[in-house]
Amino acid sequence: MRLRSLRERDLVAAIRREFPAKNKGLVLGIGDDAAVVRSGRNLSVLTTDLLVEDVHFTALLHPPYYLGRKSLNVNLSDIAAMGVKPRFALLGLALRKGLKTEWVKEFFRGLAGAAKEAGVGLVGGDISSAGKIVISVTVLGEAKALITRRGAHPGDLIFLSGRPGDAAAGLRLLRKGFRLGTNAEADSLLRAFLDPVPQIALGRTLARFRAATGLTDTSDGLSVDLFHLCEESRTGAVVEVDQLPLSPALRSFAKDPTRLALHGGEDYGLLFTVDPRKSGLIDGLRKTFECHWIGRMIRGRGIFIVDRRGRRRILEIKGFEHSL
Amino acid sequence: MRLRSLRERDLVAAIRREFPAKNKGLVLGIGDDAAVVRSGRNLSVLTTDLLVEDVHFTALLHPPYYLGRKSLNVNLSDIAAMGVKPRFALLGLALRKGLKTEWVKEFFRGLAGAAKEAGVGLVGGDISSAGKIVISVTVLGEAKALITRRGAHPGDLIFLSGRPGDAAAGLRLLRKGFRLGTNAEADSLLRAFLDPVPQIALGRTLARFRAATGLTDTSDGLSVDLFHLCEESRTGAVVEVDQLPLSPALRSFAKDPTRLALHGGEDYGLLFTVDPRKSGLIDGLRKTFECHWIGRMIRGRGIFIVDRRGRRRILEIKGFEHSL
Repeated sequence: MRLRSLRERDLVAAIRREFPAKNKGLVLGIGDDAAVVRSGRNLSVLTTDLLVEDVHFTALLHPPYYLGRKSLNVNLSDIAAMGVKPRFALLGLALRKGLKTEWVKEFFRGLAGAAKEAGVGLVGGDISSAGKIVISVTVLGEAKALITRRGAHPGDLIFLSGRPGDAAAGLRLLRKGFRLGTNAEADSLLRAFLDPVPQIALGRTLARFRAATGLTDTSDGLSVDLFHLCEESRTGAVVEVDQLPLSPALRSFAKDPTRLALHGGEDYGLLFTVDPRKSGLIDGLRKTFECHWIGRMIRGRGIFIVDRRGRRRILEIKGFEHSL
Repeated sequence: MRLRSLRERDLVAAIRREFPAKNKGLVLGIGDDAAVVRSGRNLSVLTTDLLVEDVHFTALLHPPYYLGRKSLNVNLSDIAAMGVKPRFALLGLALRKGLKTEWVKEFFRGLAGAAKEAGVGLVGGDISSAGKIVISVTVLGEAKALITRRGAHPGDLIFLSGRPGDAAAGLRLLRKGFRLGTNAEADSLLRAFLDPVPQIALGRTLARFRAATGLTDTSDGLSVDLFHLCEESRTGAVVEVDQLPLSPALRSFAKDPTRLALHGGEDYGLLFTVDPRKSGLIDGLRKTFECHWIGRMIRGRGIFIVDRRGRRRILEIKGFEHSL
């Protein structure tokens, strides 16, 4: 849901320079899934997302109920990616003139349902009109412990939750005219795109047991998210491409499922690294959470994929533009 | 900067129903200047604003430096209106393709300057592209004490900081082609609109000395903001229209200065109520802060204005549409 173009990366670097991270109480500023500030004895975790119609979503393809859910859930995914419990949300909403009341009601029904599932309170907001629908959601989480993108070490194992590529395949099916209810296999892909589930319980469990060294969510595409994890941890990585947990539905519908899994984005699974001495902990977690081992962190700054025959090549770092 | 149409008020009521304020830790939900949640021993105060180009501002009239300042400052005004110290800000920004780098740099220079003045850290954000510029700012404040819109009582004195109507007059001059630097009197009106100053120190002082019973900012127009204060406090009010602190510039440039002062909006002063037994405290404050007595709260739900001859009439509750 967040397009991170090269220009954005330049801008973020410029903003970082303009706003030095020396503010009292600031624990972690721009550059992770969420910002962390000290609040008394606790840590507060903050994240915000801006969704603009016809840039980040299209009202034609995204039913308002699912759009309401997703608007909150993509932010909850950022909080999950810190291993933290989300507590409160704020909504900024600009509505087009002529939008039906039914659309607005369904949007709020979706948002309220997602908030209830996560135990999050919608505590404030700002509503206005605009030429396009604009949705801005901010979430506040609270934590005693959390996991950043900065803690991975060479040798750590890389795990992934969820099924990479499914959401990107779902978007492609939507564009081709598929809608929910056509067939079960297509539905699983459509749902992955329309209604991603933030991995809050997994993230919190990883933080509580200090099971992971580095953690992020797969919102921008596995290659881009792994790149961010490596950048912030100052490591490289090797992904065993044949270990990618491609879903049967993705294999049925996608021409190049591996490409979608690596670069598709919008998955909102968790990508995390584990000290090999703690891999027993992960074996335990895997009884409750679907996680797959996909590779390991390495020294240096290279990011590679390796296939079953041991052929290694540089992993291209790119997300697809999801603009519609 | 926030258009609150009747439709928005309906929506807010609908949202309140959809999101019952029973979340653990929620102190004050939708309906005040900002939301308040418990965070350990402290209170956290949260507010968010969404600004859409050609709805809430126009790039042609609003130089990017001042737009950057105002984007943050209108949120800081909401925090000031709780009597609280702002701490951290998040920015969601969507930029038009073709927008000059210079524009973006000036916007951030303004935002960074306003953040520095207020001691606020910009800790995170989300940048993307869109057909129109969209700016979403969220601010987190922290407090031990605060003042809501709910505490005013019949008999309390009403005070106002700042010069109501100046900002609305400034916008009208901008539309007529006036620009900063033309003449000093026009400049004071243009600045009131382009670069409002959030009354953080006054708000905090009112909270620290428990000097005010009710507090809000004048962002929507004095009549609308007073209406909100009365609604939340379940009182009525009488405004002495001849006590409104109309600026000499407003009197020079506006055809109907009182109308702009009552309904113009975008002032970002503070409107607060004081127990008459504490009016001595306010006399002290007035040595440091420019505040004016303008009326008193009354029993019942009527809101009136009264002129020097004692003629009383119902105050029309309306803000101008600032859409450009």
